[in-house]
Amino acid sequence: MQRLWDKGTPLDERVLRYTAGEDHLLDARLVEYDLRASLAHAQMLNRQQLLSDEDLAAIEAGLQELGEAHARGEWQITLDDEDVHTALEKRLTERIGEAGKRIHLGRSRNDQVLAALRLYLLDAADSLEGAADAVADALEALGEREADTELPGYTHMQQAMPSSVHLWAQGFAAELRDDAEGIAASRRRISRNPLGSAAGYGVPGLPIDRDFTCEALGFDTVQEPVTAVQLSRGKAEAGLVFELCLLLQDLGRLATDLLLFYTQEFAYISLPEEMTTGSSIMPQKRNPDVLELVRGATATLQGSLVEILNLPAKLPSGYQRDLQRLKPPLFRAIDLSLDSCAIMEKLLDGVEFLPDNILLDPGIYAAGRANRLVLEEGISFREAYRRVAEEIRREADDDD
Amino acid sequence: MQRLWDKGTPLDERVLRYTAGEDHLLDARLVEYDLRASLAHAQMLNRQQLLSDEDLAAIEAGLQELGEAHARGEWQITLDDEDVHTALEKRLTERIGEAGKRIHLGRSRNDQVLAALRLYLLDAADSLEGAADAVADALEALGEREADTELPGYTHMQQAMPSSVHLWAQGFAAELRDDAEGIAASRRRISRNPLGSAAGYGVPGLPIDRDFTCEALGFDTVQEPVTAVQLSRGKAEAGLVFELCLLLQDLGRLATDLLLFYTQEFAYISLPEEMTTGSSIMPQKRNPDVLELVRGATATLQGSLVEILNLPAKLPSGYQRDLQRLKPPLFRAIDLSLDSCAIMEKLLDGVEFLPDNILLDPGIYAAGRANRLVLEEGISFREAYRRVAEEIRREADDDD
Amino acid sequence: MQRLWDKGTPLDERVLRYTAGEDHLLDARLVEYDLRASLAHAQMLNRQQLLSDEDLAAIEAGLQELGEAHARGEWQITLDDEDVHTALEKRLTERIGEAGKRIHLGRSRNDQVLAALRLYLLDAADSLEGAADAVADALEALGEREADTELPGYTHMQQAMPSSVHLWAQGFAAELRDDAEGIAASRRRISRNPLGSAAGYGVPGLPIDRDFTCEALGFDTVQEPVTAVQLSRGKAEAGLVFELCLLLQDLGRLATDLLLFYTQEFAYISLPEEMTTGSSIMPQKRNPDVLELVRGATATLQGSLVEILNLPAKLPSGYQRDLQRLKPPLFRAIDLSLDSCAIMEKLLDGVEFLPDNILLDPGIYAAGRANRLVLEEGISFREAYRRVAEEIRREADDDD
Amino acid sequence: MQRLWDKGTPLDERVLRYTAGEDHLLDARLVEYDLRASLAHAQMLNRQQLLSDEDLAAIEAGLQELGEAHARGEWQITLDDEDVHTALEKRLTERIGEAGKRIHLGRSRNDQVLAALRLYLLDAADSLEGAADAVADALEALGEREADTELPGYTHMQQAMPSSVHLWAQGFAAELRDDAEGIAASRRRISRNPLGSAAGYGVPGLPIDRDFTCEALGFDTVQEPVTAVQLSRGKAEAGLVFELCLLLQDLGRLATDLLLFYTQEFAYISLPEEMTTGSSIMPQKRNPDVLELVRGATATLQGSLVEILNLPAKLPSGYQRDLQRLKPPLFRAIDLSLDSCAIMEKLLDGVEFLPDNILLDPGIYAAGRANRLVLEEGISFREAYRRVAEEIRREADDDD
Repeated sequence: MQRLWDKGTPLDERVLRYTAGEDHLLDARLVEYDLRASLAHAQMLNRQQLLSDEDLAAIEAGLQELGEAHARGEWQITLDDEDVHTALEKRLTERIGEAGKRIHLGRSRNDQVLAALRLYLLDAADSLEGAADAVADALEALGEREADTELPGYTHMQQAMPSSVHLWAQGFAAELRDDAEGIAASRRRISRNPLGSAAGYGVPGLPIDRDFTCEALGFDTVQEPVTAVQLSRGKAEAGLVFELCLLLQDLGRLATDLLLFYTQEFAYISLPEEMTTGSSIMPQKRNPDVLELVRGATATLQGSLVEILNLPAKLPSGYQRDLQRLKPPLFRAIDLSLDSCAIMEKLLDGVEFLPDNILLDPGIYAAGRANRLVLEEGISFREAYRRVAEEIRREADDDD
Repeated sequence: MQRLWDKGTPLDERVLRYTAGEDHLLDARLVEYDLRASLAHAQMLNRQQLLSDEDLAAIEAGLQELGEAHARGEWQITLDDEDVHTALEKRLTERIGEAGKRIHLGRSRNDQVLAALRLYLLDAADSLEGAADAVADALEALGEREADTELPGYTHMQQAMPSSVHLWAQGFAAELRDDAEGIAASRRRISRNPLGSAAGYGVPGLPIDRDFTCEALGFDTVQEPVTAVQLSRGKAEAGLVFELCLLLQDLGRLATDLLLFYTQEFAYISLPEEMTTGSSIMPQKRNPDVLELVRGATATLQGSLVEILNLPAKLPSGYQRDLQRLKPPLFRAIDLSLDSCAIMEKLLDGVEFLPDNILLDPGIYAAGRANRLVLEEGISFREAYRRVAEEIRREADDDD
Repeated sequence: MQRLWDKGTPLDERVLRYTAGEDHLLDARLVEYDLRASLAHAQMLNRQQLLSDEDLAAIEAGLQELGEAHARGEWQITLDDEDVHTALEKRLTERIGEAGKRIHLGRSRNDQVLAALRLYLLDAADSLEGAADAVADALEALGEREADTELPGYTHMQQAMPSSVHLWAQGFAAELRDDAEGIAASRRRISRNPLGSAAGYGVPGLPIDRDFTCEALGFDTVQEPVTAVQLSRGKAEAGLVFELCLLLQDLGRLATDLLLFYTQEFAYISLPEEMTTGSSIMPQKRNPDVLELVRGATATLQGSLVEILNLPAKLPSGYQRDLQRLKPPLFRAIDLSLDSCAIMEKLLDGVEFLPDNILLDPGIYAAGRANRLVLEEGISFREAYRRVAEEIRREADDDD
Repeated sequence: MQRLWDKGTPLDERVLRYTAGEDHLLDARLVEYDLRASLAHAQMLNRQQLLSDEDLAAIEAGLQELGEAHARGEWQITLDDEDVHTALEKRLTERIGEAGKRIHLGRSRNDQVLAALRLYLLDAADSLEGAADAVADALEALGEREADTELPGYTHMQQAMPSSVHLWAQGFAAELRDDAEGIAASRRRISRNPLGSAAGYGVPGLPIDRDFTCEALGFDTVQEPVTAVQLSRGKAEAGLVFELCLLLQDLGRLATDLLLFYTQEFAYISLPEEMTTGSSIMPQKRNPDVLELVRGATATLQGSLVEILNLPAKLPSGYQRDLQRLKPPLFRAIDLSLDSCAIMEKLLDGVEFLPDNILLDPGIYAAGRANRLVLEEGISFREAYRRVAEEIRREADDDD
C-alpha cells in the first residue's frame, strides 16, 4: 500500500484515506450488529407509522440477505465505502431501491454508529467474561491435580511462609474470577440505547419511540438526555478496557511466576512441549515464548487504555470526529485479551510441578511454631517468636 | 526508636529515607482507620481467648486516647516512625506497656496496612460520590435558572441542531451522576476484609475469626483465599482512580465548553469575579484560571492511573515492597478530584448566560423542518431534506 | 515449512498464531533492510575467510533476486514463515541451496532482527524529519501569504496582546522545526551496529569483524559491550516515538487553534472544500474532520509511547520474547505521524484568513502604550500602566 | 490541613488554595534561580537606560540579601504569596521600596516563571547526569571486583551462553552512560532564553536586549520567535523526564536481575545488611526492600511522563494556566531519579557474588563448540551444530 505522502496521489484520495483510516477493515465485525440495529429501527418506524409495511418487509429481507452474503464472504467493506454504515446503506439501496433510503429517517450516523458498537461490545464482554472464567477453571484444575504439592509462600521474592500449589493456584483463580466480575460490571455503561439521540440533540418533529428499540435490542436502559449520549463516548469503551488491563495484569503476573518457576535455578515446573519453542543455539533449550508474550501483553493493554482515555479528554461537548480513533485500541485490547486467555488456559492444562525440586527453607515454619507456643503456653507472640528464632538458629548450627 | 524489623543494626539514614519515603506525611489520614482496624482485631482476639479482658480494656482505652490526641494535633507520625502502623504500636506500648505488644498476634504488617487503607478508601469513595453528585446538582440548578436560554447544539464544533442551556447542563449532569455511580461501584473491590491473611498466607496454628473483623469493620466480604489478598493489591486502588479519571474527564470537558463560551468571540457567559484572576497586562481582563486548572487536572488523573497500573504489573505473586508506592498517586488523585468537584460546584453557581450574544445559525432548524415535511406530506426524508435545503438557500439569498 | 527452531514437533496452530502475531504483515517493510544487513554480514564472513567466494556470489545474487521479486509483489511473508527473517532464509535456500544456510554463521536471530529494524528506523527518521519540516514550510508560506493580517495574541484564551498571523504561524513553524531536530537527534540511539552481538553474548570462537558491518551498513558506532545490545531494546524505539509524541502534540495544538478559528463564532478562517466533509443534516455545513482526526492522533501517539515504555520495564536482562511486541506500536506511531504531517501540509496550503472577522479588543494595546509612557516620561511601569488603564476606561465610556 | 470542600471556608480562600496549589512549597527550590534571572533582567534594563544605576544597585543588594536570608531559613514562601515570584517581588519592595517595582518593566510573569524553571532544570540535568554516571562507575567497579566470576548469559530467562559478572555489569554500565548522554542531550530544549517574550508576544515599544540576558544567564540561544516560547511549554520538561524514564527503566531492570540473583533458589549474591530490612515473621530473612522500591520507581516515572505529556496536549496556543500543573510531576521525577541513583550506587558497592552457587548448564557451550568445529573442519554451522548437539546428548546420558 502506498502511503499518503507518496507524490502523485490525488488530494481527494489522500483525504479519504486519512479520514477513513482502517475503518473498512475494522468494521467487518460490526456488520451483524449494524444490521440488527437497523432492523430494530425500521420496525420502530413502522410501528410509529413512519414506514409502510411494504417498505419494512423489503428492508427486513434486504438486511437479512446482506448479512448472509457477508457471512459467506460474498462482499466486504471497501475503502470507498468508508465504513460499515455506508457500505450497508449503499448495498441495501442497490438491492431494494428507494425503500433502502427510508431507513435513514429519525436517525443519524452518530447514534447509528454507537448502537452497532455497543451491541458488539455486549457480545464481546460476554466472551471475555467466559474467557477469564475458563482460565480460572484451568487454575483450579491445576490446583486439584497438584493437591499434595507444597510450595514456599514468598514475600519480597523470599521464602516466607508455608504454602501449596493449591493455595497458589486458588489465589490466581480468585483474581481471574474477580476480573470476570469486573468485565460483567462494565456492561452498565455499555447497555444503554443511543438510538433516537440522532446527532446528539434528538429528533425534532418526529414521534420516535426510544423504548421500543431499547427493548428490541436488549439494552438495559434508554440513555437520557440525548445530549449525554455523545458526551459519554469513550467512557464505556474505557470501562471495558480498564477491566481488561486488570485481567491482563493478572495473567501477566501469573506468567511471571511461571517464568520464574521454569528457570533452571528454580526448576519447579515443566511446560508442555507444544507451548515452548526451540532455540537456534542450544539443542536442549526450550523457550517459554508464550508466557513472555502474555507478560508483554500487559503493556499493550495499558497503551490501549491510555489511548482511549486521551481521545475524549478536553474535547468540547457534542460529537467530534476524534472519537473515530477509539475503535483501533478498543478492538486491539479485546482481541489480545481473548487470545491471551485462550492460550493461557491451554498452557495451564499442561503445567506439571516437580516436587523433588521444591525445597522449603526450614525457617518458614517459624511463625506457625510461635503461634502454637502462644496457644500452649499463654506467652506473648513476641516472646514465643524469640524462642522459636533461637531454636531455629540452634537447629541450623546442628546441621552444619 | 526501633522499627519493627530492627535487630540492632544501625540503619543508614539514606536507606531509611529512601524506603520510608513520604509515608510519615501521607499516613496522617490513616491514623483513625488503623485505630479502628486494630480495635476490631483486638476484640476478635479477645473473643477467641487469645487476649485477656484486661489487655483488651487497656488496648481499647489506649487506642482511643491516641486517636483523640492525634486529632488534637498532640502527636504526628515522624520519619523515624516510618509509617502509621509503627507510630501507633510504639505509642500504644509506651502508654499501656506489654499489652500493647499483644495486639500483634495473628496479624502481619501486610494485612494491617491494607485494612486501614481500605477503610479509608471506603470513606473517600463516599465523599467523592457526594462531590460528583453536588456538581450534578449545581448543573441542574443552572439548567433551571437558564430554562429559557437557547443554545446551538454543536457537532464538530459547528452549529448543528437547536439545543438549550437546559439540555446542555442536563447532559453534563447525567454524566456526573454516571461518574458517581461508577465511584460507588468501585467499592466492590475495596470492601473486602484482608485481616487474617497476615503476610499473605494466613495464620497457621491460631483460631482467627475473619468473619468477626469483617462484620465489625463493615466490609462486605472476607477476601478469600488468603493468597488473593496481596495479588489483588493495586486493583481496588486502580478501580477507584479509573473512575476518578472519568470524573475529571467530564469536569475537564465541562471546563473546555465554559472556556469556549467565555472567549470574547463567543461571549456566551459571564463568570463570577471571585472565580477569575486579574491580569498584570490588561486592566479589563479577567482570566478563567480555575477552569484551566480543572481542565489540566485531567492530566494528573491519567498520570496517577498509569502509575498505579504500572506498579503491580509483571510482579511475581506475594507481597512486594513496590506496592508501597501506590499511596502517593492514590491520595493525589483523591484529593485533586475532591477539590476540583468542590470548586466547580461553586463556580457553576455563579455562571450566567448572556442570551443576547447567543446567535443561532438559521440552518440548524433544517433537520426539524425536513422531519415535519416527511410527516405532513409522506415524502422520504431525503426528498424533504432536499427541499428544505433549497428553501434555506433561497432565504439566505433574500437576506443579502 | 520449517521454522528455525523447529525440531519436528507438530506445532499447535494456536501457538503459532499467538507467538507470530501480525509479524508476517508488519515485516513487509523490513524485507529490504534484512536483505541489506544479510548482505553485509555475508561480505564480512567472506573477508574473514568464513565464507567462500562462490558462496558469497550465490548469496549476493540470491538476495538481490529475492528483493526484486518482493518489490514486484511476487511473494509475501506468510503466517507460516512467521517473520521476515525465516521467510528470507527459506526462500534463499530454495534458490541457491546449501550456501543459503551458511549465512547463519556468526549471527543469531536476535542481532539480525535488530539490525534490520534499526536500518529501517534510520530511513523512517529521515522521512519523518522531512515531513515535519514540510509542515513548517507550509506554515511559513501561510505566514507570508497573510503577512498583513492582524490577529489577537491570546493568553487564557482571552485577547491579551496584539499579534499577527505571521507571528502565529512562525511560532508553530519554530516548534515543528524543533520537532524535526528532535527526530534527527533520536538517531543517536538507533545508529548502533548490533551485528556480532548474536544472542546477546557475542560469537565465541569466531573472528567476527563488527567494524566492517558497521561501516558497510552506515551505522555510526558498534554497540559495545555485546550485553548492552539486548538491554537497550526499546530505548531507541521509545526515543523516536517520544519525539513523534511532541510532533503530534504540536500538530494537535495547531489543529485546536484552527478548529477554534473555524467556528462560526470566531469565523477567522476558511478551509479548502476538499479538506472538509459534508453533513447529512445541514446542507451548508462543512465539517473540519481532518483537523479533528489530527487532534485525536495525539492520543494514539501517547498510547504507543506508553506501550513501548512498558514493554521492557522490569524485565530481567537478556533477550525476552516480550520485545517482539514493540513493533506494532512503533510502526503505528511512525505511519500516523507521516500521514498527519502530509495532510496538515496540504491543508495549510488552503487555509485563508478572513481579516474582516478578526476584531481586536482595544484593550490589548494597553501594555504597549504603558511601555511607551515609561520611555517618554521616565515614570515607573506600574504608574504608566495605571494611567493607561484609566484612559482605556474613559475611552470605553465615551463609546457608550 | 483542611480540604477545600470543608464547609465554612470563604470562597476567596478556596479559590486561592485551588489555584496556588502546592506552589508555595514546590517553589522553594526556585528561589535562587528567580533571583539570578531577576538580576540579569535588571542589569539589562540598566544597560538599555531603562533603570537607573541607583535602582540597579538597590535591586542587586536587595536580591542578594533575600537569597541569603532564604538560604538561612529566615523566610519561606507562604500560601498567601502564591508562588516564588510574588514572594520575591513583595519582599524586595518591602526592603528597597519603589525600586523593587521597576524590575517588572519589560517582562511578564510568563517569561519570568520560565526563566527560573529552565535555570533550575539546567542544574538538575547536571546533577542527574552525574548521578547516572556514578551508578555506571559503581557497576564497573563491581565488574572489576568480580573479574573472574562466571555467569550464565540468559535469554528467555533460560541459560543460553557463557557470560561473566564483568560482562553483565559492563552491559548495564553502558546503558547508564547512554542515559547520562540522553540527559545531557535534553539540555537542547532547556537552554533557551525565554526572557523578553513577556506574556508570549514580546515587549512592544521597549528596546529590550534578549541577547544580553541570554549570555548573562548562560543559555545557549534566545528562543525565537516570541510566540514559540509558550508553545514550547512542556516539551523541554517532557524531554528531560523521558530520559529519566529510560534511566529508571535501566535501574529497574538492574534491580530485577539482582532480586532474581538474591532469591534463595538462585542465591548468586549477598547484599549488604544495611541495604536489607528484617522481617517480623522470619528471623533469618533479610528483605531487599531497596531494590523493590527502585523497581517500583519505574512506574512513578512513567506516570509523571504521561502527566507532563498530557498537560499541553490539545491546548490552544498562548499561555494557559493548565501549564502550572507541570511542576509537581517534573520535580517528583527529578527527585526520585536522584535518590534512586544514589541508593543504587551505594547498594552496588556492597553486592558480592557467590561463585559456588553459580552453576552453568554444560549445554551453554554448544554454540562456541560448533563455531570452533566450523573453523577447524570447514563444515557448515548447521552441520557442526548437529554434531555438537549429539555429543551433548551423549555426554548427558553418560552422566546418568
